[in-house]
Amino acid sequence: MIAPTKNDIVKAYSIVKQYAHCTPVLTSQSVSKILGCNAYFKCENFQKVGAFKFRGASNAVFSLSEDLAQKGVCTHSSGNHAAALALAASMRGIPAYIVMPENAPAIKRKAVEGYGAKIFTCESTQEARERELKKVQADTGATFIHPYENFHVICGQGTASLELLQEVTDLQAIITPVGGGGLFSGTLIYTKETNPKIEVYAGEPQNADDAFRSLRDGVLYPSVQPNTIADGLRTSLCPLTLSVIQRYANGILTVSEEAIVEAMRLVWERMKIIIEPSSAVPVATIMQNRGVFEGKKVGIIISGGNVDVEKLPF
Amino acid sequence: MIAPTKNDIVKAYSIVKQYAHCTPVLTSQSVSKILGCNAYFKCENFQKVGAFKFRGASNAVFSLSEDLAQKGVCTHSSGNHAAALALAASMRGIPAYIVMPENAPAIKRKAVEGYGAKIFTCESTQEARERELKKVQADTGATFIHPYENFHVICGQGTASLELLQEVTDLQAIITPVGGGGLFSGTLIYTKETNPKIEVYAGEPQNADDAFRSLRDGVLYPSVQPNTIADGLRTSLCPLTLSVIQRYANGILTVSEEAIVEAMRLVWERMKIIIEPSSAVPVATIMQNRGVFEGKKVGIIISGGNVDVEKLPF
Repeated sequence: MIAPTKNDIVKAYSIVKQYAHCTPVLTSQSVSKILGCNAYFKCENFQKVGAFKFRGASNAVFSLSEDLAQKGVCTHSSGNHAAALALAASMRGIPAYIVMPENAPAIKRKAVEGYGAKIFTCESTQEARERELKKVQADTGATFIHPYENFHVICGQGTASLELLQEVTDLQAIITPVGGGGLFSGTLIYTKETNPKIEVYAGEPQNADDAFRSLRDGVLYPSVQPNTIADGLRTSLCPLTLSVIQRYANGILTVSEEAIVEAMRLVWERMKIIIEPSSAVPVATIMQNRGVFEGKKVGIIISGGNVDVEKLPF
Repeated sequence: MIAPTKNDIVKAYSIVKQYAHCTPVLTSQSVSKILGCNAYFKCENFQKVGAFKFRGASNAVFSLSEDLAQKGVCTHSSGNHAAALALAASMRGIPAYIVMPENAPAIKRKAVEGYGAKIFTCESTQEARERELKKVQADTGATFIHPYENFHVICGQGTASLELLQEVTDLQAIITPVGGGGLFSGTLIYTKETNPKIEVYAGEPQNADDAFRSLRDGVLYPSVQPNTIADGLRTSLCPLTLSVIQRYANGILTVSEEAIVEAMRLVWERMKIIIEPSSAVPVATIMQNRGVFEGKKVGIIISGGNVDVEKLPF
């Protein structure tokens, strides 16, 4: 699979902007003071389905030819990508088939069903998911939209940084979380091909540091039993996202679980916005790596706001 | 005390806008669908100190003559008004003296201290508070800024609806919460003297329905042992706010505690913004009085976002 370029992201934006929100960029004097930098929060927690994932999903769905589209789209996911793909498909009026593990939270099943997708339940192993997905593909002819190993998805995710750079000038650094690398790759391509002087980092939980190690060693490590509250970051890179990260990234910095919870609470209490643990990871990264960001104008991509308010870490 | 007019609020805005945030107006398709109306949320939870109270406090502080200002300001409060007055005073560089009951949460004391105010602790009875405040006034010569029985405070609170009406045209109704009536009065004056056709309501907890009964009977009822989660709405009206409400209000509607919690959760989950229980009251009011708001373009003033995230009702 070839990597997208900035132009591909610009092209994606002509599609994405028709369906996704142009999310606000928020600032807080007190949070900037605590972080020791001028922080600009690109609030994808206010995006449709509560996460940036809708950008990639809508670009993938609306980039399909009419013939392919009629057969629908499918994926396996228990998270934000499932909801995003379901909503994008319903907006195009085509079927979405989602393979979900039997232990997926009821609330997530309900969200996906609410967007009109058809759910297939399987065991929670990776093998069972893939087997069930292959079966669904064979039965329906639906196009598989991978959550990040997908050209159009990566282009869509890159449109968040496109909007951020349009709204905020003179940014010196941008930081995103990294799980499978879709958001990080899209951000890297758009940002570095616009202005290579802007430093672009990702934050990752220490307890799920496969991307950090993959970048360090140039080897694609799987994510093995990641024990982190940042549930969106438990996946591992794919060849495409790793190659983009190797080419452009200024670094991947890892943070402790305690720092993630502290950062999440800081944003909730000071900014009055609900962010999910994965989104607190870049904030925690700035707190724990002051030397890297000190005094700079920094864009932080807040990836989403989907949390179970009955199960908070504080 | 005479009631302010729209012109007084316009004048107040020339001061308030120098110090307060012009807060965003947010919308949510899914929340509007659930509420059965087109809802526009004026987000004072994003205001300085996390509440609309900073508007009134900053107007009061910056309206003082230089001579009076030098002696400082004082109040008794354990809530958002205390923090707002402390911050406004520190911005003008004058002393603030805050009388707080001994059982005020440590987190609120810390916030007020953080803004540089001097705290005087007293017993938690109304009598003890007033006695201590009189003593502070006598000792310091500071000007007492009442949280709502104050001309400049009411004018300041009215500037939230001024911004709302500037940003959103053709509103058919506006709803605020009501406790002491400062926000409701300011909203009524500005809105009704701009366009009397706009309906203006307040929502109030059934368990603290003194304002509802005061308006119904034309008698100023005290708030007696109010047992509501909406901690900002436990106060009672004063002669000035009651007179404004009698003159202009379309009604005060009361809601159950269950509805308040349900509405708070709805906004948290769907809009990803943190609102305090008092701010959920107008949302709950719309949910429980569909006939009043159905199909209308409704402005909702979200009063604040100060909640203890360790003590949530869900």
